[in-house]
Amino acid sequence: MKLSEFLLNDRFARQAGAEILTIEPGYAKVRMEVTPDHLNATGVCQGGALFTLADLAFAAVANSYGQITLSLSANITFLKAASNGWLYAEAREVHHHNRIPYIEVRIAQEDGTLIAIMTSSGYRKKDILPVEPITDTEQS
Amino acid sequence: MKLSEFLLNDRFARQAGAEILTIEPGYAKVRMEVTPDHLNATGVCQGGALFTLADLAFAAVANSYGQITLSLSANITFLKAASNGWLYAEAREVHHHNRIPYIEVRIAQEDGTLIAIMTSSGYRKKDILPVEPITDTEQS
Amino acid sequence: MKLSEFLLNDRFARQAGAEILTIEPGYAKVRMEVTPDHLNATGVCQGGALFTLADLAFAAVANSYGQITLSLSANITFLKAASNGWLYAEAREVHHHNRIPYIEVRIAQEDGTLIAIMTSSGYRKKDILPVEPITDTEQS
Amino acid sequence: MKLSEFLLNDRFARQAGAEILTIEPGYAKVRMEVTPDHLNATGVCQGGALFTLADLAFAAVANSYGQITLSLSANITFLKAASNGWLYAEAREVHHHNRIPYIEVRIAQEDGTLIAIMTSSGYRKKDILPVEPITDTEQS
Repeated sequence: MKLSEFLLNDRFARQAGAEILTIEPGYAKVRMEVTPDHLNATGVCQGGALFTLADLAFAAVANSYGQITLSLSANITFLKAASNGWLYAEAREVHHHNRIPYIEVRIAQEDGTLIAIMTSSGYRKKDILPVEPITDTEQS
Repeated sequence: MKLSEFLLNDRFARQAGAEILTIEPGYAKVRMEVTPDHLNATGVCQGGALFTLADLAFAAVANSYGQITLSLSANITFLKAASNGWLYAEAREVHHHNRIPYIEVRIAQEDGTLIAIMTSSGYRKKDILPVEPITDTEQS
Repeated sequence: MKLSEFLLNDRFARQAGAEILTIEPGYAKVRMEVTPDHLNATGVCQGGALFTLADLAFAAVANSYGQITLSLSANITFLKAASNGWLYAEAREVHHHNRIPYIEVRIAQEDGTLIAIMTSSGYRKKDILPVEPITDTEQS
Repeated sequence: MKLSEFLLNDRFARQAGAEILTIEPGYAKVRMEVTPDHLNATGVCQGGALFTLADLAFAAVANSYGQITLSLSANITFLKAASNGWLYAEAREVHHHNRIPYIEVRIAQEDGTLIAIMTSSGYRKKDILPVEPITDTEQS
């Protein structure tokens, strides 16, 4: 099984419409279309919907080296409200570490306008995921 | 319209099953039951589902004084994984401020075990919400 | 050696004038007087001076159970500027954990006005500090 | 007066040995040598010393457009301990905004090894700093 297939089991992200486009070692790209179902009471994309998208991108990149990696703590800054259209989340392991990596996820609209940035400290366990190693680029 | 009714328009939170129990000036309590639909690929509640619950609690307390208040930046720390059962989010405006309040949301299980803590800096706009003022406790 | 004595070796905190008042298991109180030497170019207490005070309070509470505990990631929110007077930092281990505790430090003026709040995820190592266990309250 | 001269009034940063190397619109570079005076009780550079360096870099870039800009909330993640040598802090305004910019500061050793990353939401006031506008690169 490929990592991108394994991550299809993220039911919460899948129901929110988040889907993985690319996974490489240390990099991942995920997208989600903002629909009326993603909006909060003031009519903009709920913070939790943005976080869900970012969390799937985090999971893709954090696990791209094969070891199970959790998020310990995450910071999300909301830069601009979005109420429709596609959002793209690009995740990078800025600090590669075998125990406590630091990962950044940037969420932007199709034209590159930044919507939110999430940074997160992960915790890499010793357990190996039941997926094939990613050697190059994995397209889902 | 009451604030708790207005916040029923948070469609993302509602579809995640988050519901407001209580709103007071400076305090709110929200709950959500973790079901298989909330789980990520490793079988625990997705960070985005926890964030969605926290964000609704944030919105309830941040707007409890009548002015529209957004989240600028939020930090969530994941203390313990949860894979089922009710979660309760209690939000408090730790620093009451007419422009930039600081709000803390604690998510715990029914027995009080902490699952996650979210802290957030809000930005209070001059716009007034179209809701009745909360003078005491508002039960939904 | 007592923990409060061991922490006198924090030379950066000591030169900033931060001093420990109390350490208990899971709680610590530290103070610092804001002098002209603590100010930044706009005439208010530099963020780093506040962080230094908070970091000493973090170290006191994080190590209050005897195991060496580092800060992995910390969030500090600046609520009000201070340009003189005593500041008190109270640190609490909100989530007690043998590996990854969560600690909150509130910095306030003498009259209780909040100046900043720092929250931090720690990492508790297996190494034991060369200090006496704290059983009750340790006054320095 | 140049901005780099104005920031010499940051007495806390100056006493910690932090000095500005370069300021451009949206970018700044600052350095500090870690000496025994910067160490905490476990013999590594105190979190507050790293934060002080980062905060000066933040101030340089945040004010590089002429308006007074404060830090509202900052997150610092400690990636690797340092106990001596020069540290370089590079600050970038990742999200340029006339009210609430988002700034990232990376602290690294001379060989590029990352030591800490600080991200911060700023708040840009309407007040103009009494400094010359920066049009190109300002070397101090």
